[in-house]
Amino acid sequence: MSKVIKGGTVVTADRQYKADVLIEGEKIVEIGENLSGDEVIDASEAYVIPGGIDPHTHLEMPFMGTTAAETFESGTFAAAAGGTTMLVDFCLPGADGSLLNAIDDWDRKSKDQICVDISYHMAITGWNENIFNEMEAVVKERGINTFKHFMAYKGALMVEDDEMFASFKRCAELGALPLVHAENGDIVQELQNKYLAEGVTGPEGHAYSRPPEVEGEAANRAIMIADAAGTPLYIVHVSCEQAHEAIRRARQKGMRVYGEPLIQHLTLDESEYFNKDWQYAARRVMSPPFRNKEHQASLWAGLAAGSLQVVATDHAAFDDAQKRMGVGDFTKIPNGTGGLEERMAMLWTKGVETGRLTPEEFVAATSSNIAKILNIYPMKGALVPGADADVVVWDPTISKTISPATQKSIIDYNVFEGMEVTAQPRYTLSRGDVVWAYGQNSQPQPGRGKFVKRAPFASASKALSKWKELTTPRKIERDPLNIPSGV
Amino acid sequence: MSKVIKGGTVVTADRQYKADVLIEGEKIVEIGENLSGDEVIDASEAYVIPGGIDPHTHLEMPFMGTTAAETFESGTFAAAAGGTTMLVDFCLPGADGSLLNAIDDWDRKSKDQICVDISYHMAITGWNENIFNEMEAVVKERGINTFKHFMAYKGALMVEDDEMFASFKRCAELGALPLVHAENGDIVQELQNKYLAEGVTGPEGHAYSRPPEVEGEAANRAIMIADAAGTPLYIVHVSCEQAHEAIRRARQKGMRVYGEPLIQHLTLDESEYFNKDWQYAARRVMSPPFRNKEHQASLWAGLAAGSLQVVATDHAAFDDAQKRMGVGDFTKIPNGTGGLEERMAMLWTKGVETGRLTPEEFVAATSSNIAKILNIYPMKGALVPGADADVVVWDPTISKTISPATQKSIIDYNVFEGMEVTAQPRYTLSRGDVVWAYGQNSQPQPGRGKFVKRAPFASASKALSKWKELTTPRKIERDPLNIPSGV
Amino acid sequence: MSKVIKGGTVVTADRQYKADVLIEGEKIVEIGENLSGDEVIDASEAYVIPGGIDPHTHLEMPFMGTTAAETFESGTFAAAAGGTTMLVDFCLPGADGSLLNAIDDWDRKSKDQICVDISYHMAITGWNENIFNEMEAVVKERGINTFKHFMAYKGALMVEDDEMFASFKRCAELGALPLVHAENGDIVQELQNKYLAEGVTGPEGHAYSRPPEVEGEAANRAIMIADAAGTPLYIVHVSCEQAHEAIRRARQKGMRVYGEPLIQHLTLDESEYFNKDWQYAARRVMSPPFRNKEHQASLWAGLAAGSLQVVATDHAAFDDAQKRMGVGDFTKIPNGTGGLEERMAMLWTKGVETGRLTPEEFVAATSSNIAKILNIYPMKGALVPGADADVVVWDPTISKTISPATQKSIIDYNVFEGMEVTAQPRYTLSRGDVVWAYGQNSQPQPGRGKFVKRAPFASASKALSKWKELTTPRKIERDPLNIPSGV
Amino acid sequence: MSKVIKGGTVVTADRQYKADVLIEGEKIVEIGENLSGDEVIDASEAYVIPGGIDPHTHLEMPFMGTTAAETFESGTFAAAAGGTTMLVDFCLPGADGSLLNAIDDWDRKSKDQICVDISYHMAITGWNENIFNEMEAVVKERGINTFKHFMAYKGALMVEDDEMFASFKRCAELGALPLVHAENGDIVQELQNKYLAEGVTGPEGHAYSRPPEVEGEAANRAIMIADAAGTPLYIVHVSCEQAHEAIRRARQKGMRVYGEPLIQHLTLDESEYFNKDWQYAARRVMSPPFRNKEHQASLWAGLAAGSLQVVATDHAAFDDAQKRMGVGDFTKIPNGTGGLEERMAMLWTKGVETGRLTPEEFVAATSSNIAKILNIYPMKGALVPGADADVVVWDPTISKTISPATQKSIIDYNVFEGMEVTAQPRYTLSRGDVVWAYGQNSQPQPGRGKFVKRAPFASASKALSKWKELTTPRKIERDPLNIPSGV
Ligand SMILES: [Zn+2]
Ligand SMILES: [Zn+2]
Ligand SMILES: [Zn+2]
Ligand SMILES: [Zn+2]
Ligand SMILES: [Zn+2]
Ligand SMILES: [Zn+2]
Ligand SMILES: [Zn+2]
Ligand SMILES: [Zn+2]
Repeated sequence: MSKVIKGGTVVTADRQYKADVLIEGEKIVEIGENLSGDEVIDASEAYVIPGGIDPHTHLEMPFMGTTAAETFESGTFAAAAGGTTMLVDFCLPGADGSLLNAIDDWDRKSKDQICVDISYHMAITGWNENIFNEMEAVVKERGINTFKHFMAYKGALMVEDDEMFASFKRCAELGALPLVHAENGDIVQELQNKYLAEGVTGPEGHAYSRPPEVEGEAANRAIMIADAAGTPLYIVHVSCEQAHEAIRRARQKGMRVYGEPLIQHLTLDESEYFNKDWQYAARRVMSPPFRNKEHQASLWAGLAAGSLQVVATDHAAFDDAQKRMGVGDFTKIPNGTGGLEERMAMLWTKGVETGRLTPEEFVAATSSNIAKILNIYPMKGALVPGADADVVVWDPTISKTISPATQKSIIDYNVFEGMEVTAQPRYTLSRGDVVWAYGQNSQPQPGRGKFVKRAPFASASKALSKWKELTTPRKIERDPLNIPSGV
Repeated sequence: MSKVIKGGTVVTADRQYKADVLIEGEKIVEIGENLSGDEVIDASEAYVIPGGIDPHTHLEMPFMGTTAAETFESGTFAAAAGGTTMLVDFCLPGADGSLLNAIDDWDRKSKDQICVDISYHMAITGWNENIFNEMEAVVKERGINTFKHFMAYKGALMVEDDEMFASFKRCAELGALPLVHAENGDIVQELQNKYLAEGVTGPEGHAYSRPPEVEGEAANRAIMIADAAGTPLYIVHVSCEQAHEAIRRARQKGMRVYGEPLIQHLTLDESEYFNKDWQYAARRVMSPPFRNKEHQASLWAGLAAGSLQVVATDHAAFDDAQKRMGVGDFTKIPNGTGGLEERMAMLWTKGVETGRLTPEEFVAATSSNIAKILNIYPMKGALVPGADADVVVWDPTISKTISPATQKSIIDYNVFEGMEVTAQPRYTLSRGDVVWAYGQNSQPQPGRGKFVKRAPFASASKALSKWKELTTPRKIERDPLNIPSGV
Repeated sequence: MSKVIKGGTVVTADRQYKADVLIEGEKIVEIGENLSGDEVIDASEAYVIPGGIDPHTHLEMPFMGTTAAETFESGTFAAAAGGTTMLVDFCLPGADGSLLNAIDDWDRKSKDQICVDISYHMAITGWNENIFNEMEAVVKERGINTFKHFMAYKGALMVEDDEMFASFKRCAELGALPLVHAENGDIVQELQNKYLAEGVTGPEGHAYSRPPEVEGEAANRAIMIADAAGTPLYIVHVSCEQAHEAIRRARQKGMRVYGEPLIQHLTLDESEYFNKDWQYAARRVMSPPFRNKEHQASLWAGLAAGSLQVVATDHAAFDDAQKRMGVGDFTKIPNGTGGLEERMAMLWTKGVETGRLTPEEFVAATSSNIAKILNIYPMKGALVPGADADVVVWDPTISKTISPATQKSIIDYNVFEGMEVTAQPRYTLSRGDVVWAYGQNSQPQPGRGKFVKRAPFASASKALSKWKELTTPRKIERDPLNIPSGV
Repeated sequence: MSKVIKGGTVVTADRQYKADVLIEGEKIVEIGENLSGDEVIDASEAYVIPGGIDPHTHLEMPFMGTTAAETFESGTFAAAAGGTTMLVDFCLPGADGSLLNAIDDWDRKSKDQICVDISYHMAITGWNENIFNEMEAVVKERGINTFKHFMAYKGALMVEDDEMFASFKRCAELGALPLVHAENGDIVQELQNKYLAEGVTGPEGHAYSRPPEVEGEAANRAIMIADAAGTPLYIVHVSCEQAHEAIRRARQKGMRVYGEPLIQHLTLDESEYFNKDWQYAARRVMSPPFRNKEHQASLWAGLAAGSLQVVATDHAAFDDAQKRMGVGDFTKIPNGTGGLEERMAMLWTKGVETGRLTPEEFVAATSSNIAKILNIYPMKGALVPGADADVVVWDPTISKTISPATQKSIIDYNVFEGMEVTAQPRYTLSRGDVVWAYGQNSQPQPGRGKFVKRAPFASASKALSKWKELTTPRKIERDPLNIPSGV
């Protein structure tokens, strides 16, 4: 049975045009004028865009002594309700340290729950021969071409510079892409101690102990290590000018570095932590913390300029009870906020409606760019014949005030609560299925989502390897007579 | 009669994939596997790419007391032989100052000669009410959405800052895009006088009198003026780090500025002007002049980083006799070099083969990006059903040493002479016609090229207008009691 | 009769130490411990610093159809009351265009009025052979080694780029230093027209029509021209990050560029123009206008970093009646504010008391640096034997609220009104005379001030000339056989 | 018995003037015209400058399994012969880890040998409570106000980020200044392994494994840590644009960071390591290694711009036999080169004679700036009454070709061998004693040098503390009702 999305304006990362989209089964089969199908999905007065891809979520993640409250079911359904048809979750090794076991574990948790497609980034939280060896299977057998490295969370997830170098080099060999959480974990810990010692125990202490310079430093360091190891690099949750500046500086030297701002950092600022209501402020605790308006302006400009490429959420939702673990000590507040459901609408409202971004740039930042970076384009992130029918009918006439009362997320608050957004998905299709229809009481369809395998050696990775091979310094050939005999 | 390009790897700005390309008449009708058509064009072992677009040529241009030797026929045929299927020429007002008359004149010169498609940028070389008025017809009737401004060539083409502002503002209203040749004409003239006075009369004086700072200054100034006028800006022939830095700085503030390096500046350096043979050096005289290796590195990085978007040629070819007009006085050497025919092969060889660029970035820089900027995408610059069948079968197995003996350009020398390139167009198709087949004695088909109309209000232009409207400073409302009565 | 300043802490640009200062007549003769003299000036609990030098004033200047209300008498007395013992006023050519006549005119106006020493910067407001010739006499006979160039005030004071180049080159030959007012006059005028046309007629329109980018552009352009002409450059009233960035960028290339922020821009911001009271806002109208807090932070950092060297005032005081000339049209509000009297106390309070500057940096920024730049160090700007006894006993224990009621300036308002400063000059000595004693009803002593001659060829100027000579591009020697015969 | 230096031109960091210098015992007592004394030192046709201070030497340092060959006697005599009258050596803790014992040890080694004055920087090579405690005595009792931290030499001297933070914070409390050797030790080690594994065993491998990015990264990291800890920072041996850029970026934010390029990096480049003669290349092995010409230009500009303040040598001289420890493995070549004797003459020749620096800037960079930073100004680094009579009669008419045959250094080669310098000390006075007279067969006077104590809390340190206190983030006061009760 075919479906046709009719009457809309197709927007992709490279253009806008009036066209219908014909879907057979899970795939787009044709895009053009006057198409017909068994079922018609109305896109009149609306845009038709590739389903959003959120490359940064932590569903049901064990962290800081608790587990993120958002489940794979609630998270993937909230995603669909917001126009996102794929997310990439972070898979963390367990006590045995095995990467492959961790993937099995994540599969077990996710497979019966997921309403849309997912993939994983594999976290490297230490270094040894087993990890070195397993990385190959992770890439070649499990279809995961990205490895995450934490430069913060000392004593827990954090890795050292030599470990990063080793892992990055391994990534280069395997054609995989390293990711980093860039904050200097040593200094974060020292500043936490300092502020706690000074009696700053509230959520504002979280922000104070993770200033922009601490993030910028780590971004800069990761970039140098990636350059030395000969691999592109992807920096998650770029929140500040300092990290962005490091990225720009690197790119201007020809280094291949990607930066991912979050929708939260683009639209919320540090004053949230100064709220007189502890719970209000604690709900906003995430790492890096929100920054001031100057940093926001930097991030927005980066999206338009192309120095930043992807807008994500770092969705890691903890409920009020969990947040209260940090009463009296901000370092114990579980780090994380939500946004999966609001990312697309917030970016449209604050970006496209203001003219900061074109509609094409909106699609690039929410879907196409990350699909290219993850090497799953155009299966995902594109509207072309042959692509997965992950399609959103994006209605710029639906206004809505964000409220926990109407959200699909499992959490009972929302960091964007009270903000007005001016567009919503009229329909969200995941591989051809309508998984969300605005105002029509859609229900989660757990288990229909699939794991998406991703091949290594994306185009940028291949180009960089070529350049590195060409420009690597060469041995100076010396006449043995010019070398003293050894001692 | 249909044609099918079979067995190749399609490369576009966003991806690579094995597919055949089916053409009916002038258009691409389908791209996919196992297509068949009346005629088969073999693309095995080759790439299939959108035809190149060179947005910067001066064919038969009257300049510096002579006329560029390259004709519309020889130029467009040379283009085709190099894989370029469209070029945009600069249309200059004549003695009467009329824009519309100039377009008529250019049409007259070009229409029976052109072998591939063309368009024009309209030059604004002064400012008055007639020009203000004609600009509307240029855009709305003649289909030209770009206006060129010369900040150099004082006493000839140069415009002043207030004229640029007025014209840029007019561009903003009309949804057109201003272009600038960025060099400070006052200072160039002063430096020319200085070096001539010091007895530096040879071609090296050309380079000395147009240093990078002089270009960077003008780029920076044009950017400020465009920002004040509320329009995007396109800077032609960005040759140096100084201009590139100004562009990056602007983009990082959210300004929409595009930069176009030339293939010459990417691959040739200033030492060319120090050649002991006057004629050798004079052949390389163009503005801006070639720079040193550091500037080249900056430009290459900019292409990969996205701070520079387009590679052009500024093809303005003068023969040896014309160049000799400047014996004894470098300021009389006609400014211009060639490159139309070599642009694609040189960029591939020095860019893709080294790993500095991906194949996708190569297509973006030679074709897709400029098509988007000129608002003719995807009619041009793309391989999608419905697009013009401007297609090149790009063969990375054909090596060739560049030589005037084998070139199609009318000029009897070549600034790239002796350089080895490692790819060539096996076939070049212009709107479905094979206009070049490597090694098969293809002949020019003058008159088959068409003029391409371009609509105003590209997506970036619309977004910027929205942002400017939103952020324009507002009048402070004051109680009349708070305003003294006038004097 | 000798005087000894006893019991204080001497602060100079390079150090702090306890010492007495012995003065004979107009000169310092000794600095050391336990000195005695005929008269004792108590400096206990206070600092002893070189008298301030304000290198940027416009006293009794004819401008915008009126004349600045501050006279040479009131201005120099206000200066003394604030701890400033020398100022440099801008001398503008009159209708005949003669520089020498203008100096005579300025001498006539100033000589019987001045209470402390002065010098002039000579303005170059056009270009011709007479100016070229007179510049030599200005430097060699009149002892003026600085020439000011206005890039704004189109149709009045503004000069074009080729005129600036010619004048800068002449400065280089004469060992003089060019100064610029950096704003793009063309664009200011266009923006004035734009905002007036939109009905923005109030003082906020002044700020809107002179945005930071317009200043940054001009600074950048002046720097390029100075570099091409081979001379150091001094940029007056650097008010924004854009101009400061241009300066930093230049200095990092080894160019010798100085930047002068004003005390107003360091401490007041653009919100002043949004005041609901027209008169309040109009009093603050000056060019460049006040900027936002980010720009302030940039300027403060520049003073500490050394990328900016001098804090001045651009004192050009117009009274309320004069300001009202611009009711209904902000372009007619005379540009200028005061600050001569408050500069030192404001910089101390907002700079030294906050820790942004060291006491030594305070002295450098208010006195020593400009004395070096003007090549009158250590006669002025230093506390060493042999120097002019321009000395201030600086009392960090006197707090005061700035108020027009207590000021010496002739104007009946004050842009710093209501601000608290935490230090004041206990005594101000000008060439050995006490011209101000706090709380002791000091009176102006008109006519005792002298004109200070300044020699050309400061050390930086000589060094730059050497470097430029060494690195100037050289003629390529070609065999005549390698040069075609002319045409 | 008094001495008078007659007939010279005094050059200090702030001016040049004709004057005689009168010395009584160890001190300057008067500077002025027509002075007389018991003994006359002829300075006609010469400059009279403060004795040079080299703040970076490693005499007799145990390192990499051997001991630097330059002794305190030969080193301090070579210094005197080159116009340097004080040096600051690095004191390293021994096996017991005690700072105080290390100082005792250094005293023991140096006291009978030194010909001119010295001081120490104390190295922090680990972190524990004893070190924390001893730091106080080091500062308050031993008169050492600087602590050195190695970010490289992993497994030996290197400290981790949290250790640096702790030590920097301790420095802030004590008013001491932290110094860093900025290279990422982890990555250096990884790159050493990589190049060795690839068969690059020669001295070029040393350069390859310590690329500019690795230095820039560490500089950037140290700056962030110093900012977080609230202390100024001094970065030794800044060799490249990357580190310099990090410094400029920090200073532009108001951070107080100093940078010290070495005379070697200013004048020698990386091609030295590509010499076909192993021994030639090995002699040049130091960390960081020499860089290319672009980096040199950056460093020179920094000295003129003030973003870099001090020129040092990192004098750590190993003889040929010691260098041969690294035959077959570049990581075993002892790191270090000489320069103590040539620093002043090389900087004059390549800096002042070219016009890159003024004579005043030369004095600042070789003497006054570091004296201020070390808080010993004007006892050292100045020519004022009361200062130590460390004075050099600097003769710009003595040319000399650098040669090991004529040097005072104990080493039998010289990295500047064959270079022509155009100035030399005619006389070098150390606290009033002539310790070097050019061409007069001066002999070392071991034991006459003294250890110079330095007080903490330099002016910049105090200012920064004030600013940090003022701007430290504050606790948000919340109503207990707004804080949930703990869990
Ligand atoms: Zn994270
Ligand atoms: Zn995360
Ligand atoms: Zn041009
Ligand atoms: Zn052109
Ligand atoms: Zn001005
Ligand atoms: Zn002024
Ligand atoms: Zn070191
Ligand atoms: Zn060292």
